[in-house]
Amino acid sequence: MTRSELFAQIQKKKSFLCVGLDTDIKKIPQHLLDTEDPIFEFNKQIIDATLPYTVAYKPNLAFYESLGSKGLIALEKTMDYIADEVFTIADAKRGDIGNTSDMYARAFFENMNFDSVTVAPYMGNDSVSPFLQYVGKWVILLAATSNKGSKDFQELKLETGEMLFEKVIETSLEWGNADNLMYVVGATRPESLVNVRKIVPDSFLLIPGVGAQGGSLAEVCKAGMNDQCGLLVNSSRGIIYASQGEDFAEKAAIEAQKLQMQMAEFL
Amino acid sequence: MTRSELFAQIQKKKSFLCVGLDTDIKKIPQHLLDTEDPIFEFNKQIIDATLPYTVAYKPNLAFYESLGSKGLIALEKTMDYIADEVFTIADAKRGDIGNTSDMYARAFFENMNFDSVTVAPYMGNDSVSPFLQYVGKWVILLAATSNKGSKDFQELKLETGEMLFEKVIETSLEWGNADNLMYVVGATRPESLVNVRKIVPDSFLLIPGVGAQGGSLAEVCKAGMNDQCGLLVNSSRGIIYASQGEDFAEKAAIEAQKLQMQMAEFL
Repeated sequence: MTRSELFAQIQKKKSFLCVGLDTDIKKIPQHLLDTEDPIFEFNKQIIDATLPYTVAYKPNLAFYESLGSKGLIALEKTMDYIADEVFTIADAKRGDIGNTSDMYARAFFENMNFDSVTVAPYMGNDSVSPFLQYVGKWVILLAATSNKGSKDFQELKLETGEMLFEKVIETSLEWGNADNLMYVVGATRPESLVNVRKIVPDSFLLIPGVGAQGGSLAEVCKAGMNDQCGLLVNSSRGIIYASQGEDFAEKAAIEAQKLQMQMAEFL
Repeated sequence: MTRSELFAQIQKKKSFLCVGLDTDIKKIPQHLLDTEDPIFEFNKQIIDATLPYTVAYKPNLAFYESLGSKGLIALEKTMDYIADEVFTIADAKRGDIGNTSDMYARAFFENMNFDSVTVAPYMGNDSVSPFLQYVGKWVILLAATSNKGSKDFQELKLETGEMLFEKVIETSLEWGNADNLMYVVGATRPESLVNVRKIVPDSFLLIPGVGAQGGSLAEVCKAGMNDQCGLLVNSSRGIIYASQGEDFAEKAAIEAQKLQMQMAEFL
């Protein structure tokens, strides 16, 4: 999917919501456990219910891998089920030497047809570039994440005076551009968002941390929005686990719609 | 597996060799493609042939994931096949927020019974600590990797004067110790090895890059060995693809034995 196609979806749905499919067998409603593939059944109903309000889905690979090959099958079925006009993110935080990143790219882009994958920058250029060889696909590079431990290294000051996450973004511009690179910037850090926008005015940012982790949508929009929106704001637990009863999909839709309506105000 | 159990294996086999199972369906011998599960069949024969010379196996997750759920099944079978006294490394380069790293830990430590997993440090403490909660299991933290791109960020100088990879190792000592943390340090960087040894004199180091990537075993031993060996030296392609004919396992054994005999000299 191209940047302009993504923006067109955002305008059409008046939403820049990404729904995180962190589907946990221990948290899904009891009544689904009797179905043939409870994880897929849960995802299917969540997708059906939230599709009018969201432009992206982000399965978190760890949740599927924790179930072994069965989990991967549920993920493959989920990816087959998601309509082509929706942007898909493999939240995998991968990154390895060239020949290995090649294999991950094959897994996510060729086999499962994801539009994008989250990549950790620590191993540098040759760990990221293999993903950038696919036309129409995206790398979403970890920059300033939303978790507590993000302060341990990402905010370290370099001898040049800048912080590590700023250097990561700057360096990545030698590898790709606003048409194949996005960045993860946590909603819990609006001050970082302002700095990121100075370095990459045109790039899309994937923003986790609104909701369960405490970030504010208004602050995120103020600090991070550009003239093509430039934001995908993710919510996972706040939507998919809004209810653990038989009405889980209906309640998920209500939460997604709430966010979509707030987003429409900012667009 | 504990540190002393690992050292006991090293003494018994006079080897600190780790065989990397980067099993690529496009590179394994033709005649295996007719078997029911070619990837597992290849691994099984490689393991049978190299077991006398190696103390560790390191499946590279990307190669299995690139085959989808079938690849995962081959990996699960491989893990069931490897004997308990051999140290196993899930080369996965994972690392995510706490609840997600929990899931990866479950996947690798509980479901597949790996002894260790490689973890990327970029997201900090809460991305690494969930893996350290498992008694007898290990995190192998990326420090100074063997690839070209490692220079992009790992060798950045901080305002304190140290390099990022040194700071990563120092900080990790607040999370774990030589009994549950190892570090990846590339064989292509013996000068970094010397610095790493000053910070973590007792810790095991996983050393990729001998062989295909050009590192020297003698230099690695000189710079990195401690009184409990303290090294696991990995070779992947140089061993498992020593021949692409029907004699692949035999030739793999010869290459593994060559390395083992060199290692015996240094022990």
